[in-house]
Amino acid sequence: MRAGMDTAQQELPAASVAGKVVVSSRIRLARNLHGKAFPGWAGARERQRVFEALSQLLMDEGQLVNPVLFEIDTLDPLEREILRERHLISTELAAGGGGTGCVHDDATGLVAMINEEDHLRLQALRPGLELEGAWQALRRLEAGLERHVAYAFSPTLGYLTACPSNVGTGMRASVMLHLPGLKLLGEVDQVVRGLNRMGFAVRGAFGEGSEASGSLFQVSNQATLGISEDATLQRISGIVQVLVTLEGQARQRLRELPMPRLLDHVGRIFGVFSHAAMLTAGEAMDILSGLMLGIESGMITGADGGSLENMMWTVQPGHLQREARRALSALERDVFRAGYLRGVLSNVQRTGQQ
Amino acid sequence: MRAGMDTAQQELPAASVAGKVVVSSRIRLARNLHGKAFPGWAGARERQRVFEALSQLLMDEGQLVNPVLFEIDTLDPLEREILRERHLISTELAAGGGGTGCVHDDATGLVAMINEEDHLRLQALRPGLELEGAWQALRRLEAGLERHVAYAFSPTLGYLTACPSNVGTGMRASVMLHLPGLKLLGEVDQVVRGLNRMGFAVRGAFGEGSEASGSLFQVSNQATLGISEDATLQRISGIVQVLVTLEGQARQRLRELPMPRLLDHVGRIFGVFSHAAMLTAGEAMDILSGLMLGIESGMITGADGGSLENMMWTVQPGHLQREARRALSALERDVFRAGYLRGVLSNVQRTGQQ
Repeated sequence: MRAGMDTAQQELPAASVAGKVVVSSRIRLARNLHGKAFPGWAGARERQRVFEALSQLLMDEGQLVNPVLFEIDTLDPLEREILRERHLISTELAAGGGGTGCVHDDATGLVAMINEEDHLRLQALRPGLELEGAWQALRRLEAGLERHVAYAFSPTLGYLTACPSNVGTGMRASVMLHLPGLKLLGEVDQVVRGLNRMGFAVRGAFGEGSEASGSLFQVSNQATLGISEDATLQRISGIVQVLVTLEGQARQRLRELPMPRLLDHVGRIFGVFSHAAMLTAGEAMDILSGLMLGIESGMITGADGGSLENMMWTVQPGHLQREARRALSALERDVFRAGYLRGVLSNVQRTGQQ
Repeated sequence: MRAGMDTAQQELPAASVAGKVVVSSRIRLARNLHGKAFPGWAGARERQRVFEALSQLLMDEGQLVNPVLFEIDTLDPLEREILRERHLISTELAAGGGGTGCVHDDATGLVAMINEEDHLRLQALRPGLELEGAWQALRRLEAGLERHVAYAFSPTLGYLTACPSNVGTGMRASVMLHLPGLKLLGEVDQVVRGLNRMGFAVRGAFGEGSEASGSLFQVSNQATLGISEDATLQRISGIVQVLVTLEGQARQRLRELPMPRLLDHVGRIFGVFSHAAMLTAGEAMDILSGLMLGIESGMITGADGGSLENMMWTVQPGHLQREARRALSALERDVFRAGYLRGVLSNVQRTGQQ
């Protein structure tokens, strides 16, 4: 099935509750074809040939249940933006250029980008903390393809990639975490510095550092050389468990503080949600994050964590314009977003004291 | 009448409406007694003698209708703080020390500080733009006292003062302005730079620069030497008229902008007002400023400009603790202030769209 945007409208599985910390897990493998120039060095005709061959292989691959092929150059800017906002394709791939595209299988959470920086970027996405499941699915996909192609591989270095930072395993595992407690207590930077020293990157999933919109953070490995895939995944799992504990303690401390800090935070969020005439995507995400915290703490009712989490994506510019069914300027989006948020969340209320 | 705090509880005359720009006018004259050491150089006994003589003169002075004497060292810290917040005494005078005090006459808006930096700081306060009336009242008070004392005066320099920056006229005239439109449009800094180049100081009445709490700014002269009192007052009046025009245009532009900028600003202010659990004094002042703007623009009902303006003072730490009838820590004040604001302004509502 070579398709337009209808299929991308399916929502990501929302197994979430308001109080949970781990939003999703993702692993990607960078792979290149033996004997073929990397996409950045290949001519247009060669890139197109690689694209045709790999997209055909992927569409026929038994591991994918209902694969959908997107050829970037056939998509309009809004469609590309929506795929990018869903983190199904990278900003680089969204720019297009002959012979670029992706195959997406919603049922398995598997996505393959073709002719991004490398010939293949195979990805597995899972809700919650499920690196092991993602890894197994990804290995099966990689092995399935390997029955038909040979990957560029060096016995000493491992898998060869366009950028030296990926040589070796070619694997980047990342976990998205919702850390409103640590952020509110101003402890994110301290935690980030500690993890950086251990060789892991922690950054805002949208926006940088302590400014991370929606308090969404992404933890990922930096090293791909000199460490096995299993060891990498094990270390990330360990770090995530520590972060979940720290975040839980932060939320607990916020509830126990001898001041209405949490009440104030959630109250203000609710006030701005109720009365702003314009909202940027970042502000909308911060509101969604605050409402989740409010639901968990019993201050907010009328929404569930899963819908709020899903709206983290639907408030993004591309998704929002699909919702509005027309192109909107940045200003028009901010105005539409404020009304959209209140419309979808019209049952949201503050409990108890005003 | 030598009194405690009861008399200071009288409110400043509130002739204001929500839309007005000029809040109040103030002129002060620095005067010292001929042949006496400046307060900072005088011994304790001499300071006390000057205090007794000047306070007696002031209490007997026919220009004052119902003068009240405050001797700083007899006041507790909260009483001093309230006088300071009302701008009736300076931070320096509030620190006390033998022989310091002030005489305040609410009916005429005249205040005299004794043994601050100079022996006498005579002040006239008026609501709105009324420099001329303030100046006439102040001259009469100055002349009345001069029938009994000789001021330190040099035929070449003019009035002599403890700090060289006041030598000459010893006069500082200042006008407090509410400039939420210019602040919201981000144009305050530009205007301030222009006025500074003309020899006038513009600063936040509470807080500095573009951070000025409650969008309250104070314009005052810097020069006291080589320019007459009348010329100084004329130039300040001219500047105030320009600022009133600029602010009016700013508010008009805000209403005409092709985006709901004003609606958004007032909406968010109302949201935080309705739902915050803690408010600093600066935040409370910004809320009062935003509500004034909302009333003027028809977005807010249920309060009048005069009460909102008066609350600019009553949300200050000292006033607030008098309201609470007990000492409060900074945190307790913030919590009390949020409830106090909603309590006093319980009729405030947003009009139209939610």
